[in-house]
Amino acid sequence: MNYPLLSTLESCESLKEMSNQELSRLASEVRERIIDVMSVNGGHLASNLGAVEITIALHAAFDSPTDKIIFDTSHQTYAHKILTGRNDQFHTIRKFDGLSGFASPKESKHDHFYAGHAGTGLSLALGVAKARDLNEEDFFVVPFVCDAPFACGLTFEALNNVPRDLKKFVLVLNDNAMAISNGVGNVHHNILGSFVLPRKTRPEAKQFFKLFGFEYIGPIDGHNIAALKEALEISKKTQKPVVIHALTIKGHGMPKAIEDPITYHGVKPFNRATGMSEKGAASKKSTFPKVFGEHLVKMGKEDDDLVVITPAMPRGSCLDAFMEKFPDRSFDVGIAEGHAVTFAGGLAYQSGKKVVTSVYSSFFQRGFDNLFQDVCLQKLPVLFALDRAGLSGSDGTTHHGVFDISFLIAMPSLVIAQPRDGDMLKDLLSSCFSWNRTSVIRYPNKSCEITDRERTPRPLGKGEVLSQGKDLVIIGLGHMCDVALEVRDLLLLHDIEATVVDPIFVKPLDSSLLFRLMLDHHFFVTIEEHSVTSGLGAAINTFVIQSGFSDIQVQNFGLPDHFIEHGDYSDLMQQVGLTPDLIAARILNRFALQLTNLDQAVETS
Amino acid sequence: MNYPLLSTLESCESLKEMSNQELSRLASEVRERIIDVMSVNGGHLASNLGAVEITIALHAAFDSPTDKIIFDTSHQTYAHKILTGRNDQFHTIRKFDGLSGFASPKESKHDHFYAGHAGTGLSLALGVAKARDLNEEDFFVVPFVCDAPFACGLTFEALNNVPRDLKKFVLVLNDNAMAISNGVGNVHHNILGSFVLPRKTRPEAKQFFKLFGFEYIGPIDGHNIAALKEALEISKKTQKPVVIHALTIKGHGMPKAIEDPITYHGVKPFNRATGMSEKGAASKKSTFPKVFGEHLVKMGKEDDDLVVITPAMPRGSCLDAFMEKFPDRSFDVGIAEGHAVTFAGGLAYQSGKKVVTSVYSSFFQRGFDNLFQDVCLQKLPVLFALDRAGLSGSDGTTHHGVFDISFLIAMPSLVIAQPRDGDMLKDLLSSCFSWNRTSVIRYPNKSCEITDRERTPRPLGKGEVLSQGKDLVIIGLGHMCDVALEVRDLLLLHDIEATVVDPIFVKPLDSSLLFRLMLDHHFFVTIEEHSVTSGLGAAINTFVIQSGFSDIQVQNFGLPDHFIEHGDYSDLMQQVGLTPDLIAARILNRFALQLTNLDQAVETS
Repeated sequence: MNYPLLSTLESCESLKEMSNQELSRLASEVRERIIDVMSVNGGHLASNLGAVEITIALHAAFDSPTDKIIFDTSHQTYAHKILTGRNDQFHTIRKFDGLSGFASPKESKHDHFYAGHAGTGLSLALGVAKARDLNEEDFFVVPFVCDAPFACGLTFEALNNVPRDLKKFVLVLNDNAMAISNGVGNVHHNILGSFVLPRKTRPEAKQFFKLFGFEYIGPIDGHNIAALKEALEISKKTQKPVVIHALTIKGHGMPKAIEDPITYHGVKPFNRATGMSEKGAASKKSTFPKVFGEHLVKMGKEDDDLVVITPAMPRGSCLDAFMEKFPDRSFDVGIAEGHAVTFAGGLAYQSGKKVVTSVYSSFFQRGFDNLFQDVCLQKLPVLFALDRAGLSGSDGTTHHGVFDISFLIAMPSLVIAQPRDGDMLKDLLSSCFSWNRTSVIRYPNKSCEITDRERTPRPLGKGEVLSQGKDLVIIGLGHMCDVALEVRDLLLLHDIEATVVDPIFVKPLDSSLLFRLMLDHHFFVTIEEHSVTSGLGAAINTFVIQSGFSDIQVQNFGLPDHFIEHGDYSDLMQQVGLTPDLIAARILNRFALQLTNLDQAVETS
Repeated sequence: MNYPLLSTLESCESLKEMSNQELSRLASEVRERIIDVMSVNGGHLASNLGAVEITIALHAAFDSPTDKIIFDTSHQTYAHKILTGRNDQFHTIRKFDGLSGFASPKESKHDHFYAGHAGTGLSLALGVAKARDLNEEDFFVVPFVCDAPFACGLTFEALNNVPRDLKKFVLVLNDNAMAISNGVGNVHHNILGSFVLPRKTRPEAKQFFKLFGFEYIGPIDGHNIAALKEALEISKKTQKPVVIHALTIKGHGMPKAIEDPITYHGVKPFNRATGMSEKGAASKKSTFPKVFGEHLVKMGKEDDDLVVITPAMPRGSCLDAFMEKFPDRSFDVGIAEGHAVTFAGGLAYQSGKKVVTSVYSSFFQRGFDNLFQDVCLQKLPVLFALDRAGLSGSDGTTHHGVFDISFLIAMPSLVIAQPRDGDMLKDLLSSCFSWNRTSVIRYPNKSCEITDRERTPRPLGKGEVLSQGKDLVIIGLGHMCDVALEVRDLLLLHDIEATVVDPIFVKPLDSSLLFRLMLDHHFFVTIEEHSVTSGLGAAINTFVIQSGFSDIQVQNFGLPDHFIEHGDYSDLMQQVGLTPDLIAARILNRFALQLTNLDQAVETS
């Protein structure tokens, strides 16, 4: 379609001069533009459709970027991007070298903070407002927060600290009564969300915000631009912190998305006409998260003691089936990773139950202290399934799960494992409670091989030799074993025979296997999709050093020590040099001469 | 004094048969016992004095350990310990091999969770209650939480998840209107705490808990055993989650502690008769936290842009003077480490101000995700002063700051430094904003040398050779440089001449210095008061491996890969083998033969 208003829009300033009717037409165009691009690129759809009118009203009412609109989570910034000079590049969103799917200060002066993890908006905004006042500057600070981050402790920590005399601080609450999945918890049921539009007043919400010193305006229809603008104008005249409680419908303007907002929260490319996903070529492969979800159902059937916790990610973590089958043994705690971990500690302590907590690797960064004190220190055999470990692809920097080994590895007695394929994931899941230790199994959201073979019990800390060679050892972590095997093939073209090893465990390392390998190999290579600074490779380095063997050389491949942006997985892997050909070339560059010398030495001797 | 009731108390069961009058007398004895032991051992005093009656009432009303009393933070468990069979060992509290100053499941079946970091009580209790219901067991779950953890997001995450139909769940809220320092924030000012005893009703507190589905009982006088018992009996009959709001006075029963509850929160040994601290032998040494606090005041005078954030630790972090002098530039955000870090990001973004956030190392585990997303990713030059880095001594396991390098080291572009003495700490503080990077300066709560010398600018990533030798290199981190120098002296007795190096920076490492050292040394030793698994030593190992030098050997000294308990610093250091003589012996054991061989080789050649 054409976008008559959008294509002639000079800047977000122009919105101030448009009539409400024009703004409504603009909203329709923005919405169509989002659906058009999402049908090709995939991305956050339903949440963005619900935020169009609020975004337009904000830009009509405030002077961005002087006034600071600060997006919590910031996956709902598509309309904002389109209206702030990025419509021309909007088709590149989430692509390598294209626009980010989240707020990005690099892209625009209208984006103030990189965000992606929920709950930071209010805290950041409070910082900005306090700095403004210290500097005696004069502008509005406008945190834009959905209802889901009100399950998140950080939101409350900030709410607790908003002083009642803080001026020009307008919290815009986009309440669609959902996280990615349905809302949960007391805030959802008793204060916000839940029953959304039918009710005209929300005394509980008013009461709640009043307790925290806020003036409350609402609830208002978050798709009514006139009402929104009016509320914003009132808020601008209020001499204390204000909250505008706007009720919206996730997926607004796209019937299929309204009908199934969970599926349409984040979409793969779909058919623009039908709204249906295109079926890809039939694949026999599954993905690690799917294997996890399916195997958990099987384990749940066999064992009444298995319980599952998710911080608002039933769908993403593939737990829907388990949760539907065993609702009593399923806990969606909302976007509250810290509580998810501590609560797991409480459950495991009392019940002797088998507690599985599934958290995305990058979000697990919020549960680290809880893991330390409330699970590891208690010596509780909880399993943490760390989904999305590795590069996240198009979600980008905030979602890459590339630091977890680093922050976990010093935790005493913690087990860290990673499966190379679907069968190994099932083996590890079936074995982990026999280790009687707090365990982390990390895996990426990538396709994986899976067969019908029987389960093999996996003893704690035992690795596997996948391919026996003689010249050097390549240790691949998880799915990087596939890369390791390809590197082996490439090296073979140069008459170099590599031994390929799957350590399976990062902690504890298989020390006897490593010792054995060091006896007859001098050259080691480690490959991992994790920060090379402090992952498997670093652990192997320390192992080699502490073993006291001299003459062992190690080359580490992993993610470089800088933040990595978004893009297709294969582009990113190429960029960071983790493809088989790039790795093989660097190995040859470093070791070829020595390997040749070695061969000569062997021949001579 | 004698303890007639206490000394004949058989078990906490006996409390059920005692009259309220007897229980009051028992309370006096328990209080005296606490003061007696604290005057010798030091420890948490004022908070424990305030919790005596509640603890007695809890044990009179509930059947511990069948009913589970779950202490949040658990520094206020002294009366509980005394009443649950540990009175005889109470004089050993906080001593090496003695009772822990916090709850300890190892000590007693009445203690369910190790705790020490605030805010976990409600979340753990909810886990226990849910597990109980799944198991169809029948008992009360009684989280015992003070008001201060209501600044902590984790408390809210749990509160949000307490289902309104949860039975036998009694939240006992010990509201003394304080954290360690005075309470802060909206919960403190508008809902709990703040005006404490004069008011007879607390409609805001009732409103607040009702929004979260709780039945509210209170406020009641938390030092009135009869009133407490009555409230607890009512709570036992309520078919939904209940909160009992008990108002207490921190330091109750000890006038000096009531007068100055901040000083008497945690005390050093004091004179039993006067209540005053004994003055130790006059020392010219300062401590790292004191140097930090004093130098910050100086910096604050010279630079209006300097602002300071603390999560409820003004006194512990030695920020009182700064906060008193520059109240507008000081932010105590309450026990909310995550928000402290994200808020710092917001402040630094807007103001171009110099933001210093002071957090204890072990508590910083709660701000890791915030550091990642809201500061490092934003490339904001915030300084994090990580106090209490290293072993905490008598506070024990939950308070040891021994994992921070591990969880921080993979963070791209982050600076990690540690000063060896007070002068270096001042140098680093004065230099850090010139690095224009997010920086962490870690230091222990230990005494340190300090002189009047001028500030030396410290360029980023530059270490120092403290003593030139030739046989091996000893790298000591921070105050472990002193140990390294003592080890050098001990080795000299064996004709081994060590080069001693202060790296100053863990990240970035001084690569040119290390290269230079590797050119003329084969043997390296690293010493750090941090987990040896993934600290400075591990970073050096990886550096050595990646440098490609062959024939470099490294011996790493640090804290072993298990949880370390409480005790005097010197006992703990002995236990973990980090004393100069133990280190020297192990170095000799590993390298002596080779060093001798080396000398011979040199002589021969």
